Amino acid sequence: MLLLESGEDIIVVDCGVAFPEPEQPGIDLVLPDITYLRQRRDRVRGIFITHGHEDHIGALPFLLPDLLPAPIYGSRLTLGLISVKLDEAKLLSRTELREFDPNQRPAIAAGAFIVEPFRVCHSIPDAVGFGITTPAGLVVVTGDFKFDETPIDGVLTDYDHLAAFGDRGVRLLISDCVHVETPGHTPSERVVGETYREVFRGAPGRIFIATFASLISRVQQVIDTAAEYGRGVALLGRSLEKNVGIALELGYLKDPSAVLIDAQVAAQLPNERVVYVVTGAQGEPMAALSRIASGQHREVTIGAGDTVIVSATPIPGNETAVFRVINRLFRAGAEVIYGQRALVHVSGHASQDELRRMLELTRPAHVVPCHGEHRHLMLYAELAMEAGIPAEAITLVENGDVVEISADQVVVAGQVEHGYLFVDGRTVGEVGDVVVRDRRALAQDGILMVVVGIDRELGQIVVGPEIVSRGFVHVTASRELMEGAKAHLREALDAVGNGFEMADVNTLSRELKSAAAAYFHRETRRRPMVVPMVMDVQNGSRSEWH
Amino acid sequence: MLLLESGEDIIVVDCGVAFPEPEQPGIDLVLPDITYLRQRRDRVRGIFITHGHEDHIGALPFLLPDLLPAPIYGSRLTLGLISVKLDEAKLLSRTELREFDPNQRPAIAAGAFIVEPFRVCHSIPDAVGFGITTPAGLVVVTGDFKFDETPIDGVLTDYDHLAAFGDRGVRLLISDCVHVETPGHTPSERVVGETYREVFRGAPGRIFIATFASLISRVQQVIDTAAEYGRGVALLGRSLEKNVGIALELGYLKDPSAVLIDAQVAAQLPNERVVYVVTGAQGEPMAALSRIASGQHREVTIGAGDTVIVSATPIPGNETAVFRVINRLFRAGAEVIYGQRALVHVSGHASQDELRRMLELTRPAHVVPCHGEHRHLMLYAELAMEAGIPAEAITLVENGDVVEISADQVVVAGQVEHGYLFVDGRTVGEVGDVVVRDRRALAQDGILMVVVGIDRELGQIVVGPEIVSRGFVHVTASRELMEGAKAHLREALDAVGNGFEMADVNTLSRELKSAAAAYFHRETRRRPMVVPMVMDVQNGSRSEWH
Repeated sequence: MLLLESGEDIIVVDCGVAFPEPEQPGIDLVLPDITYLRQRRDRVRGIFITHGHEDHIGALPFLLPDLLPAPIYGSRLTLGLISVKLDEAKLLSRTELREFDPNQRPAIAAGAFIVEPFRVCHSIPDAVGFGITTPAGLVVVTGDFKFDETPIDGVLTDYDHLAAFGDRGVRLLISDCVHVETPGHTPSERVVGETYREVFRGAPGRIFIATFASLISRVQQVIDTAAEYGRGVALLGRSLEKNVGIALELGYLKDPSAVLIDAQVAAQLPNERVVYVVTGAQGEPMAALSRIASGQHREVTIGAGDTVIVSATPIPGNETAVFRVINRLFRAGAEVIYGQRALVHVSGHASQDELRRMLELTRPAHVVPCHGEHRHLMLYAELAMEAGIPAEAITLVENGDVVEISADQVVVAGQVEHGYLFVDGRTVGEVGDVVVRDRRALAQDGILMVVVGIDRELGQIVVGPEIVSRGFVHVTASRELMEGAKAHLREALDAVGNGFEMADVNTLSRELKSAAAAYFHRETRRRPMVVPMVMDVQNGSRSEWH
Repeated sequence: MLLLESGEDIIVVDCGVAFPEPEQPGIDLVLPDITYLRQRRDRVRGIFITHGHEDHIGALPFLLPDLLPAPIYGSRLTLGLISVKLDEAKLLSRTELREFDPNQRPAIAAGAFIVEPFRVCHSIPDAVGFGITTPAGLVVVTGDFKFDETPIDGVLTDYDHLAAFGDRGVRLLISDCVHVETPGHTPSERVVGETYREVFRGAPGRIFIATFASLISRVQQVIDTAAEYGRGVALLGRSLEKNVGIALELGYLKDPSAVLIDAQVAAQLPNERVVYVVTGAQGEPMAALSRIASGQHREVTIGAGDTVIVSATPIPGNETAVFRVINRLFRAGAEVIYGQRALVHVSGHASQDELRRMLELTRPAHVVPCHGEHRHLMLYAELAMEAGIPAEAITLVENGDVVEISADQVVVAGQVEHGYLFVDGRTVGEVGDVVVRDRRALAQDGILMVVVGIDRELGQIVVGPEIVSRGFVHVTASRELMEGAKAHLREALDAVGNGFEMADVNTLSRELKSAAAAYFHRETRRRPMVVPMVMDVQNGSRSEWH
């Protein structure tokens, strides 16, 4: 998410989600914290969306209630994909969607800004960047882009428009940089079709192609190849069916030979007449491919004679999951074609030559790389300097940074409140860093709960100490360890004072915790989380020490 | 670990550890379950080790007590590395280490077997494979290998010996296959030196090279390049210092210009005179590179002017950790050279051409690929068939499979007891699958402990219900949720019966658990682990329901 602010006017560019890192267990989605924006919601003149991928639209259902009544601007397919989300979140009727056609080169006024969308190629059709005229000059936001000279939908990046921006004078280019590590030019999406054709030629039975639900152009290539080889195409996976449905309806996906068929129909056809497009190319355990691989899919059982194309590159962090699925598919008897064996995926992002060409077309006075990790920003800065941009005209920013664009300079002028909100089940923001840190600790060494009931009047333990553990050691296998712990804890409590009337419940609780932690560390060299609980059975009070 | 058994004789080849998968949180190491072997320990005639990597020697300190008095056979460096481990485990004095020199082509009798080690190239010096004459014919175990024509230590794979095995007739080849996805020939380790030289030529300040502690030949290249460019080389990381120490002592690492210096000495030298070799190229959080990147290293602070070479390829699953370290190094101002930018690492394993050549040299009647995941076995089988091995002569095995080699055939003839033992802290095998499953569940949604104290005679709750959670929601932020839960639980307990004397403690416990689980799922759509505890304050009994 990117904000542009001038006087009393704010526009928002994109509103996406991030996916949780391995260190954020149990988290479903990560949203940007928009406290800053929420406090200024009456100034938001519009939300401009570059394209329909989750990392650009996924946060809308969660954050839009704080941004309304600002309208959402997008191209046709982008708004189609957003509609489905807002409908599910019961927000559609309250939201104003304003469609633009980038081919018309519209100029959309939004407060102090004039926004001109321009066509770019990316791994989803109908993607755009924005040329934004601001009081401080023209800002070009590339959005996610590549320069594909033979795109599947035939729609090229609007080079003329970019060059025209260059002629008008670009004060600041905000450029995609995530693929800057790769030299040369990203291959055209079309090359994947070559691999498909080769596989279709040789496959004796069913073909399964796993890809991203949003990769509409990949689905188009499957449809085209299937038509060529006389196969029907069935979709498996809810998100895929939904996206394909919208893309067909809006004309971004074409099926002239009517090869798309229902899964039930596919099940009736001979194996060599069927292609399945399935979700789960990243090894997501609940998606179609994983379930097929582990024999848990309701409709499809895989086996000898089947061919699977895993048409994706694992996102860092997903490798183990993806390879586990591939191993299972092989074990089930299928032939599996994946990235190490054939060209089954190309990126939707610009490589070094394309990033240079974007700089040449727009000739910006200043650049800010975005949409990358810190190493990408650094490498982009190197590339931009090689392309003739002076070092002082390149600004590297972190989340939350405020970039001030004035007549004299473009500089980081401060920071606004920012951060992340975690979505977990139905809760948004209730699971924070402390909870996630606890989850990591629980996963490492487990937890021990130590409970005693005391009677302060009698000055003695009347129940316990009882110990319950989870994720620590198998309890029945460690009876001796646990009995030792109980004896140790009883001694520790006895040592606290002469009778419990002297020690308050919190002191006992603290003692219980530290004695248990010390005992188990000495015996096992591990540090499980210890949660003590001392209950006073006479007056029902209890305390817990953190 | 591989066993060969004939009559009353068993020999063991290698005894390594696996590293835990992301789904095995908190586990330090994974050992093979050697129940089968332990029950037959009096038959073990020898443990033959191919080379000194952890996945081939790492389990010895844990499992050797069950295998003694069987001697360990290995080449000089391999036994050197093993000695350190056994010394630390206080097993060295009880163990018989029998050194062999593969250049002498010894033939070692061990029960019914004659074992002939042969030199192979790998990413550690002094690596071997074994030609093993058995009553059923000659079995060749390649060990981990590549065919490096310009190895750093000048020691080539013993092609003649392999060809001689081929002439004698190889009944079974057990081949490394882990790099079978890669076409062509694995580059020589020497090419990494070219990258080093290029970096050394241009680096204005200190150079840090992160690699594996066992990659002795990589350290040799650093030493050679440093000598060429007039820099001193200091080591950071205990495992690295230990391995380098042994390799120097045994002559496998040479420092003719005496460039190796202490870190304290390095700290006194001008920046452009220093190279640090550091551990942590896989992003391991406690290793030197991670600590340097996050500013937590005791001796070294990184900054502008420094150059870091991350001389490794992330092992699948480690990508996020590695890239996090790289981002931090960039952020600290360092220049970072890594796999996406330059040739900083080559594999120690054979690619397709080398695997084919091994087949050509040994001309086996049967093959069993090993040391790979299932997809590697499948691709190796394809490669072997292309190389002329009939399909029925290729046997794919899983852990625990028994391969029977007879005059007629080589087939999987059964399975022995097998599996994994987890090392966690000081405990070996006490943390099992149940505990690990619990840890995963704890990490996903956290845990809730629900405690009530009841008085059965009075028929009432005298303490609680009290709820303690960890990793679920932030408690203070969810007071309402917790108060609601308590009220709900009280009702649920009241509904169990007319007075608690009717219901036993286990029934109450069960009710407490299911009521809490239902309440929290309804409110949050999440399923935390719920641990109930009902304590009878009158007679001190308690029960917990699983």
